[in-house]
Amino acid sequence: MTAPLKSIEGTGDLGKVMADIGQAVRAAARVLALAPAAQKDQALDLMAAAVRAQKARILAANAEDLAEARAAGLTSAVIDRLALDDKRVEGIAEAIETVRALKDPVGAVTESWTRPNGMTIQRVRVPLGVVGIIYESRPNVTADAGALCLKSGNAAVLRGGSDSTRSSRAIHAAIQQGLREAGLPEACIQLVPTRDRAAVGLMLTGLDGNIDVIVPRGGKSLVARVQAEARVPVFAHLEGIVHIFIDKAASLDMAKTIVMNAKLRRTGVCGAVETLLVDRAAAATHLKPLVTMLLDGGCEVRGDKATQAVDTRVKTATEEDWSTEYLDAIISVKVVDDVDAAIAHIEHYGSHHTDAIITDDTAAAQKFLAQVDSAIVLHNASTQFADGGEFGFGAEIGIATGRLHARGPVGTEQLTTFKYRILGSGQTRP
Amino acid sequence: MTAPLKSIEGTGDLGKVMADIGQAVRAAARVLALAPAAQKDQALDLMAAAVRAQKARILAANAEDLAEARAAGLTSAVIDRLALDDKRVEGIAEAIETVRALKDPVGAVTESWTRPNGMTIQRVRVPLGVVGIIYESRPNVTADAGALCLKSGNAAVLRGGSDSTRSSRAIHAAIQQGLREAGLPEACIQLVPTRDRAAVGLMLTGLDGNIDVIVPRGGKSLVARVQAEARVPVFAHLEGIVHIFIDKAASLDMAKTIVMNAKLRRTGVCGAVETLLVDRAAAATHLKPLVTMLLDGGCEVRGDKATQAVDTRVKTATEEDWSTEYLDAIISVKVVDDVDAAIAHIEHYGSHHTDAIITDDTAAAQKFLAQVDSAIVLHNASTQFADGGEFGFGAEIGIATGRLHARGPVGTEQLTTFKYRILGSGQTRP
Repeated sequence: MTAPLKSIEGTGDLGKVMADIGQAVRAAARVLALAPAAQKDQALDLMAAAVRAQKARILAANAEDLAEARAAGLTSAVIDRLALDDKRVEGIAEAIETVRALKDPVGAVTESWTRPNGMTIQRVRVPLGVVGIIYESRPNVTADAGALCLKSGNAAVLRGGSDSTRSSRAIHAAIQQGLREAGLPEACIQLVPTRDRAAVGLMLTGLDGNIDVIVPRGGKSLVARVQAEARVPVFAHLEGIVHIFIDKAASLDMAKTIVMNAKLRRTGVCGAVETLLVDRAAAATHLKPLVTMLLDGGCEVRGDKATQAVDTRVKTATEEDWSTEYLDAIISVKVVDDVDAAIAHIEHYGSHHTDAIITDDTAAAQKFLAQVDSAIVLHNASTQFADGGEFGFGAEIGIATGRLHARGPVGTEQLTTFKYRILGSGQTRP
Repeated sequence: MTAPLKSIEGTGDLGKVMADIGQAVRAAARVLALAPAAQKDQALDLMAAAVRAQKARILAANAEDLAEARAAGLTSAVIDRLALDDKRVEGIAEAIETVRALKDPVGAVTESWTRPNGMTIQRVRVPLGVVGIIYESRPNVTADAGALCLKSGNAAVLRGGSDSTRSSRAIHAAIQQGLREAGLPEACIQLVPTRDRAAVGLMLTGLDGNIDVIVPRGGKSLVARVQAEARVPVFAHLEGIVHIFIDKAASLDMAKTIVMNAKLRRTGVCGAVETLLVDRAAAATHLKPLVTMLLDGGCEVRGDKATQAVDTRVKTATEEDWSTEYLDAIISVKVVDDVDAAIAHIEHYGSHHTDAIITDDTAAAQKFLAQVDSAIVLHNASTQFADGGEFGFGAEIGIATGRLHARGPVGTEQLTTFKYRILGSGQTRP
């Protein structure tokens, strides 16, 4: 039997609750924006300690969520994402400590120049303000996203999935304890206290200007809804239709190693390759070994006619395959005329996320890197490097394919904006 | 008698016309994004030459616009903004040449680092894509905005004011000639061929994803409409409620020089100061000289009780005055308790555009610069430096008070985004 949810469910006052959250979080954001790095770090340390200290409470809450999820017949995949155990709770605490160890981006002077009249102009990093995070069943996002926002001086409004309500609340209670003990306003990191989906709609309108950017963390349908409805900027990618182009000057060994890693290291990540494009001039030597390797590795291959000709196990690729993100052990394979044809294919079917060329020809690589209009373009490396950790950002709140402000992995620096500080000595404008 | 407008007016097919513009401009943007700096510069040279060569045609078109504007009884201010003469046409050509002389921001590597596995990650500037510019009566914006977009590798959709339709078309024809002669697609810089205001609404929806950002150039009502309706990011400021705080440690001479310049050099610019805040501890020495100077300089002063007490010419400031952008020879003046009270006033009434402190006290200056959350904060310098030219950007398309991507003056660099280029030698992810 699961315990009743303490929440505003049924009070019918969602609009007021969300408006109050907006006002409180904006006020807290002001305080947090000016908090010294040491105080933010102290809060993160105290949060990690509180998560560990409240492990039993967090696991008990999670057990109730799991019981409800099982009773509701949710899939084993959802239940796996939702489930916590000792190791996963420790992982949540360690993730907070990882964020704590990052450099504070706030206050850094990223550019500075002096005008002929002697004025110095500095471009200084400041927090974005308030970040809204909308996520699904993984309760650890409550801590991960909260910690990243705090480190970068941003307040946060968190809206977790309905399935993990109790788990998220228990983790949030630990976060609040850390904020309180460090002398920061608890309102810095708010958890929306309702399962009512209308709360998401209100967040997407920006809560009267009190949310500056929205980050959806979840599947394609969540991201699509957020992108369609949001009236504030969104950092997200809808899908990663990731390509690798095997140029005629590609080393076969390197191509095999990279394709194997890019497809099968993990198939469910956004940087996993979904379409392999092979230069017609390399098809005779490279196509069969690559396709055989993938098939033998347990990957389903869907190919064009030329690809089907090299192995009877290759299935027919339909038009839809070229724009499908499988997130599974499936790959589409096509022979293209040259690097230009590969670029044209990627621009037509791709999602501007991550695309790679394998070649020993510098000119072909330069052309590909210049002309493919994606957030991340790689030469001779696996597409699974599309990740904030692998970039050296320490942690990321997501990967963005939008063109403004944040593109690629969104880490602490990408959660800041800037202002101009002008230092004069009495200058006036002529 | 004015000539009839060649346009789609009355054909009733606005949706299709705008959709076609969107598709054509996106295709042209792809070409332009990859155009070498020399080709863009050649196009700008040829545009300036074409503006000079077509001066008679531009002035004739402008005369027709002016005749219509006079017949419609438009104000002399509108007519002045609309009017061209030999000197103003030459100014348009020179402005194009100024933009041409700027550095091409595209392709610059702004960051580069090598990961422990030997991969190099570069952050490279790329154009934003397509910029939509919505402006009012000044026909020169057609050339200025078009040139800035072209220099930064962006295609543009221009929608000029109804009053200046013929003038904008004549200038646009010269721009098209420059593009054509330089071998760039004419579709790079499109002028919406209709006065129908519904065209603006369609631009604000982003033309099916074919406009990446909107820049409104005009008065408050235009900016307000754009900010309320746009479904794509907007670079703009609604108003500049600009403050100067005279700290207790301010030099009176410097305060007088800067306030005089910030208020009266030009009263109609967004960086003109609108509210003067005087530290109570400096009121006895500084308030009267500053107020008298302003009144004697022809500026109306609206003050709180303390300010009214120093000169009988001071009018009463109402609550509304503290949030009014006069854009005129009027200033509101208030005595505040200290720097904290000044910051609180600015955060409450300000527009996050530009604010300054005058003081010889470094600690007070640092506090003000850190805590005032505006795009531009100044110490001991005139607020009228809020301008892309004065920042050294060469030219600007506007000033933004939004928090994402662009803040403060928006020049060629701010019209770019970036992508990550990863250079490997076969790296795979463990």
